[in-house]
Amino acid sequence: MTLVLASRSAGRRAMLENAGLTFASDAANVDEDAVKGALRAERAPVERAAEALAELKARRVSPRHPGCLVLGADSMLECEGRWFDKAPTMAQARAQLLALSGREHRLVTSAVLVRDEQRIWHHTAVARLTMRPLSEAFLDSYLEAIGGLALSSVGCYQVEGRGLQLFASIQGDFYAIVGLPMVELLGQLRTLGELPS
Amino acid sequence: MTLVLASRSAGRRAMLENAGLTFASDAANVDEDAVKGALRAERAPVERAAEALAELKARRVSPRHPGCLVLGADSMLECEGRWFDKAPTMAQARAQLLALSGREHRLVTSAVLVRDEQRIWHHTAVARLTMRPLSEAFLDSYLEAIGGLALSSVGCYQVEGRGLQLFASIQGDFYAIVGLPMVELLGQLRTLGELPS
Repeated sequence: MTLVLASRSAGRRAMLENAGLTFASDAANVDEDAVKGALRAERAPVERAAEALAELKARRVSPRHPGCLVLGADSMLECEGRWFDKAPTMAQARAQLLALSGREHRLVTSAVLVRDEQRIWHHTAVARLTMRPLSEAFLDSYLEAIGGLALSSVGCYQVEGRGLQLFASIQGDFYAIVGLPMVELLGQLRTLGELPS
Repeated sequence: MTLVLASRSAGRRAMLENAGLTFASDAANVDEDAVKGALRAERAPVERAAEALAELKARRVSPRHPGCLVLGADSMLECEGRWFDKAPTMAQARAQLLALSGREHRLVTSAVLVRDEQRIWHHTAVARLTMRPLSEAFLDSYLEAIGGLALSSVGCYQVEGRGLQLFASIQGDFYAIVGLPMVELLGQLRTLGELPS
């Protein structure tokens, strides 16, 4: 296996490890805000933005790993046309959660495999989540309970933890939520002969 | 919160804890094989069997917890009309995986809330999983890698781990796979006033 994960995400690393893969990690430095701003200006759909960022991350480190498969990934959140990023402060996390409260949003995760700076595969997965209407009191106690974790994910919630209490429904591809389309990725690695079948 | 989990499953306990719930555990002793045999004899659908077992587990311990909400849960696997149980030996785990290889199966999880021996809520979630055709060589190396874990789940695989490599597709309600319909359960606990909204 000559797989390189071009991501700093501990969750993505854990997912690959849990699935029994052997891989190296080499995270790319990408100015995500600049890329998102440019794509936003040309009215790109959120799926294309996630795919572009995933590909950029993989391409950026590919020259350092000749012949290797480099995996880039990106997750984005869109609600009624607005894109959400990680919140830098608890006050902004609170404002984001209030903006999502009572509405459906989409979590889009794209994964791209690059070898020698050529894209050889990509897959984009989508989940639809409906947040229930949150009371101010609930929101305050929720943020107090999770603390800084609210700043570590794009939606300011963690579905694998207490964040599950925020939702009225979760539909679509669960792996879009966890940040890697694992079934499709493993399938492609088998097709490429990088995993036994 | 006056919730009692009538299950020995470490996974279910962890899910409730991760979601921020406070609860007690009191597992029921239920002769699952006898119940399944009786339901099988009357040609019950697998959904009804999972629901009956979940309810039985909750009812069994309910008298020990007057006034409390008791949560029973059960997961069952059905493939082309056949019900699968946990395998008692590695040889039987291997035979089960071969029987599932190349086919679609359904994982059905039912959860039931009982208070004072009265059922007050239930929800049944279904996931459809298609196992890719597994080579004998892959199967042997897979079973060697996971060892006794093959005996700990109804499908002899663990989707949260290396078992993900067995699948061509996973669809439907992910929480059916993990063993508790968490979103619906949390919603019901809010409706009952057992969780803040």
